[in-house]
Order: sequence, then C-alpha cells, then structure tokens
Amino acid sequence: MTEFLRARYRLFPVPGEDGVERARHLAREQTVECPPGIAPEAEERALGQVDRVEPHPEGGCEVTISYPVDATGGELLQLLNVLWGNVSLWSGVRLEAVDWPASLLAQFRGPAFGVDGLRRLCAAEPGRPLLATALKPMGSTVRELARRAGEVALGGVDLVKDDHGLTDQGWAPFRERVLACAEMVHRANRATGASTLYAPNLTGPVDRMAQRLEVLADAGCRAALVAPLLVGLDTVRSLAETAGVALIAHPAFAGSFASSVTTSERGVAPRVLFGDLFRLAGADAVVFPNAEGRFPYTVEDCLEIEARLAAPLATIQPSFLMLGGGIDAARLARWIPVYGADTIYLLGGSLFASASPRDAAGELATLVRHISPREGA
Amino acid sequence: MTEFLRARYRLFPVPGEDGVERARHLAREQTVECPPGIAPEAEERALGQVDRVEPHPEGGCEVTISYPVDATGGELLQLLNVLWGNVSLWSGVRLEAVDWPASLLAQFRGPAFGVDGLRRLCAAEPGRPLLATALKPMGSTVRELARRAGEVALGGVDLVKDDHGLTDQGWAPFRERVLACAEMVHRANRATGASTLYAPNLTGPVDRMAQRLEVLADAGCRAALVAPLLVGLDTVRSLAETAGVALIAHPAFAGSFASSVTTSERGVAPRVLFGDLFRLAGADAVVFPNAEGRFPYTVEDCLEIEARLAAPLATIQPSFLMLGGGIDAARLARWIPVYGADTIYLLGGSLFASASPRDAAGELATLVRHISPREGA
Repeated sequence: MTEFLRARYRLFPVPGEDGVERARHLAREQTVECPPGIAPEAEERALGQVDRVEPHPEGGCEVTISYPVDATGGELLQLLNVLWGNVSLWSGVRLEAVDWPASLLAQFRGPAFGVDGLRRLCAAEPGRPLLATALKPMGSTVRELARRAGEVALGGVDLVKDDHGLTDQGWAPFRERVLACAEMVHRANRATGASTLYAPNLTGPVDRMAQRLEVLADAGCRAALVAPLLVGLDTVRSLAETAGVALIAHPAFAGSFASSVTTSERGVAPRVLFGDLFRLAGADAVVFPNAEGRFPYTVEDCLEIEARLAAPLATIQPSFLMLGGGIDAARLARWIPVYGADTIYLLGGSLFASASPRDAAGELATLVRHISPREGA
Repeated sequence: MTEFLRARYRLFPVPGEDGVERARHLAREQTVECPPGIAPEAEERALGQVDRVEPHPEGGCEVTISYPVDATGGELLQLLNVLWGNVSLWSGVRLEAVDWPASLLAQFRGPAFGVDGLRRLCAAEPGRPLLATALKPMGSTVRELARRAGEVALGGVDLVKDDHGLTDQGWAPFRERVLACAEMVHRANRATGASTLYAPNLTGPVDRMAQRLEVLADAGCRAALVAPLLVGLDTVRSLAETAGVALIAHPAFAGSFASSVTTSERGVAPRVLFGDLFRLAGADAVVFPNAEGRFPYTVEDCLEIEARLAAPLATIQPSFLMLGGGIDAARLARWIPVYGADTIYLLGGSLFASASPRDAAGELATLVRHISPREGA
C-alpha cells in the first residue's frame, strides 16, 4: 500500500490565477516534473496528489499535497527535495507544515543525545532551562578566548559554545584554540564540581571534519556547533549517527529560507525548518534568535519552533530550543516564564560586556535555577 | 597588510532607521558579533568596515562593507558565513555583489573542467551552445530511463543528465540505473561516433557519496549532477577537487536564497549565488531556470548569472550556464541569439512529449549547431 507524506503549503497566486491549478503544478513540479501523459505508469507511482485547496482568510490559499513516501527513497536530501526542491524557486509559496508518516521517520535516527542526553552531558537536572554563552569575538587570540571560556565556566554556565564565526583563522587556529578552551573549561569544572560543556564550532571544510573531530576527542569535548545550511543537512545527519558528540545547530545562512510567517510570502516556515527538519537531521539543540533581540522574529515563531522540537515524533528524541540573537542579561528573568523548561538561553555579548563575566554568568546561572519556566511544557 | 573582501548590499531600512547605522550593524553582525568596546584588539583585526552608504534611487540604500580576508580563514563555508551568515536572518537586506580579492581566490580551485574541459568531454567544438536533456520522470523503471537515455543520445544531444529527483528509489535503484543508462549512452555513441555525456545525479547521503562515485567510475561516467544547497557548497568544492567528474549544479532548494532582484528585498542576488558562489565552489555548469518558463526569473537575471560565470576570476575557470525550467523545443531557436556560446540548453519534458524523442533531439541538435549565439560573448 502506498504511504504518503503530507505537506501543507500556503500559495499566493497572482490575481486571476486558479489556486487548484497552481496546487496541481506544485505537486507535479516536486515529483515527476514533466507534462501529463508522457509516462502514465511513472505518474501512478510517483506523482504528488492534491488533497485539499482552501482559500485562506488572510489571502491566497492553503493546499495540502500528498507525496508518495517512496519518492523520498528514504534519503534526507531527497526528502528535502520533494518538500522544497524546485518549488523553492517559485514566488508566492511557503511550506507551512509537514505530517510525518511513521514509515518515513523510521528511516532517520534524529538527535543522538536529545534533551535528556544533553542534560546528562552538562549534569543539568530536568525541569529547569539551561544557560549557555558564546565565546567571542572572532579576531581574539587563543589565550583571550580560553580565558573567557574559563571565566564563564567558573560562573556556572551549563554550556560554552564557540561563536559560529570561529573556525581556523590565523588569530586562533582550530586545534590550538579547542584544546586551550577545553582545558580552561575542564579546570573550571574541577574547581567547581560542575559539568560545563564546551562545544567548539565544527562548521568547516567537509574533508577536514574527521580530523577536527579527532581534535574534539583529544580535547575531551562531547558537543559541537554546526550550521546545517552551511555544512549541509545531510552532513548533520551523518555526524549525529557517527560522531559521538551532541550537535548544536546554528541558523547562519539559513535565514534566507525562513522569514517570520507573519511577514513573508516565501520560504519555509521557521517551525518546519528549525523545528522539524533540524531535529530530524539530528540537532540536539537548535539555536534561533529570540524575539525582541537583533533579529526580526516573534515570540510566536519561537514558540512554534519549541513546539515542533518537543512534539512526539515516533522514536525521534526531542531537542532543546536554544534562544540567542541578543538576549539581554537584564531581561533573562522575564523570558524564562515564557518558554518551557527545555530551553537553553544563549547570552554572549552582554555577558562579556560586564565588568566580571564570571560574576555576571553566576547571577544568570542562579536565575535559570530559581525562576520557573512555563508550566506544562 | 590587511587585505579586504568587499561586498555590496542593498539595505531597506524601516522608516526612520538610519542607513549608516544599519550598515555598521551589518559589518559588526557578520564579523565580531558583539557590542563595541569589549575586545578592541579583536575588532582591530576582524571587524568589517563600512566603506560607503548611498541612497538608492529605487528605495533603501546601497552599502559596501570591507571584510578582512583573514576573517574567512581561507575556508569556503566561513567565506559564506562572513558574506551571508547571520544577516540572512535579517529582513530588508540583499547581497548584491562581491569584489573578489586575488589572495582569497588563490585559496580555491573552482571548476575542475570549466567550459573548455566540459566541451572536450562531449567533443563539442567552441563557439556553439550545447544541448542537454534531463532523464525523467521519477517513478520510471531502470529500463524505461535507459531507453530514453539511448534515444536522446542517438538524437545527438551533447549531455544527458538525470532529473534531480532521481536518487536511489526502489523503482530505479542508483547502481542499476546508472549502469544501464550509461550503457545505452555508450552504445549510442558507438553507433553515432558522437560523445554524448551522461551525468547521473550524485545528490544523496554524504556518507554514500564515495560508493556512488565508484558506480560512476564503473559506468564510465565523467560528469555528475549535484544540488549544492542540498549537499552543501563545501561538498561541491571537495568533489571538484577530488572526484574527477565534471559537476553540474542544480538549483533545487536554492531558490529560497535568491529571488529575482527586481522582486525581492531579501536574499542573495542570483548572479552572486549562481554566478560567483557556485562557480567558486567548483560547478562546471550551473542550471538555472530560463525566463518565460515555469519560474519567475527574467532574462536579466539569466544574463547576469551568465556574465558572472564567464567573468575573469584570477585562475578560476569559467563555467557554463545551463538554462532549463521549461524551455520549449519550439522556442529554442529564439533563445540561442539571446545568450552567448557557452550556454547549455536543457530540454526535458517537451522532448519526451514528442512522438519520437530521438528525432526531436536531432532537430534541436541541428539548431544549436546552426543558429549563431550572441556575438562577443
């Protein structure tokens, strides 16, 4: 029996264009991609079907397409291609939601650690959010970065991640930097008895990734940062399956796909890209800019991603939402009750701008332990 | 002496927002990503500089930012991150053009074959465009696809590529399909004396790519199709450096980055993404939808990409523009004088819709040999 992958799109046809006709085009474009009648048997097997087309109260229409699961071949990239390959080149179409069939999910392992595993790695008890910081800025020396890593670890952050712009620049070469920062975090852990986790940035040349993973192993790192749209989502999948480190997914380069659903007629809804797809690929935590920071996303966007990262998804583990993008230390207390417990608050710049990053981190570490997150999450 | 990578952006500030201030934010967001004053020495080394901010006659402003080349660390993904990492998450900003310094270009090899090499692979004399077709539709059996490959090769197309949706589906598993299609193309070549090139779709699991390259070697294939935004641009770079096959880059999943510059206030101008970046990564040919087909791009978009694929770029070879997306056989003759000689016309559906694809291909093969492309190109 043919199983189906159901995807919901919002279409914004140009005036005079028929929504049903456009939905049929979409289903054809994403599968057989040829005029009707050339290959009836192939169409029988592979052609997407339009389930439903309804006008949307705010304009355009909402359509649901059923794709045969077999069209994905059980491969992540072909799954992305079926959902958002050629049609990414259209204007006036947005991928809104995906209904994941169990037979498809069974072909993916998702996060290797997930929420529970990542909590264990930083010894953070269930029920409270986590505190993270980003080592920055790019242009700093190894010594400067390592010193900062040590300070915030002593202050009690759960997780220190590299800024996503730190790679292998001459100012702070990868191996030297990772070993030095890891050492300072280990030292802090020995001093405090805590388990601050250090996640170096692994985004880099694909043919040097194995070598960099060896550096992580040498440094005793159990987590890494990757930007899925830079390294490719299937590289994330492969890392999740084999690398043995928890993966924190960064949204660099991904914004072109996903603008806030309230402001765009194109792209992939943030909940689908950062919620469903990053999780399916294997991200244990997903970085996304919080509302009211430097980026144009809303609390609704963030809550929707949170919901998808936590939603039941066959045997695929839930992931943390890691909120960054300009969370002010002064406002952290106000955000904690907005989101659920499985949230990581990522503070970078504002922490290092304080006179004592260690003390500042310590105060924030107290907040995530004492302010109650949203209930029922 | 610090060398700089200059990037031009178009900014669309919200009313009341200052263009200069926003440009400074951009330069900071893409490099040190922290408030001023935290790390003066790091800023000295790595902070992007605003060169110029000018109002644009059609709204917003045009800004030029100079990034220290060292910020890229000589890595493709970090280069992408500097140009379009976090700022991809902004609204109202578009990357318009990049001025490539020689010291940066020297760190990339670009296309392994380029225009000349790809012409040699299909024995196509300089000065004429090439004719290509896409094997389709997905859902066809190996036998059906191989038969179609043989027919169009007998008709005299220069290049047969897999449709980008053909991967390893049960209907036509990768190895079986590639061997069978290659065999039919080889047979046709023996019969005609021509050198039609078959390019299977290599887009798939990154950890099975080496295995699939072996299949290509077994099948005697010298070219492959990849979707850079699916496999990741650095995987393309790595393949170009080591795989020994010409790479045809497909725009699947890439459309979210690049809508026509006349219609969008976001993303990366098509000329930058498909012209500069795909070429730099190592694409020997870049598929892009022609104007007046199924996709919302203009002749100007296509000509701008063509110009960037051909522009002098240190020692980096030029690449072909491969125009597809619904070019009608009936209108091919009209397009040839619009574009230069280093263009590949990709016709799929309309060819297979004819009573004899072989004869239809033969007629088109005559056109690309007898109609003059645009001069001076």
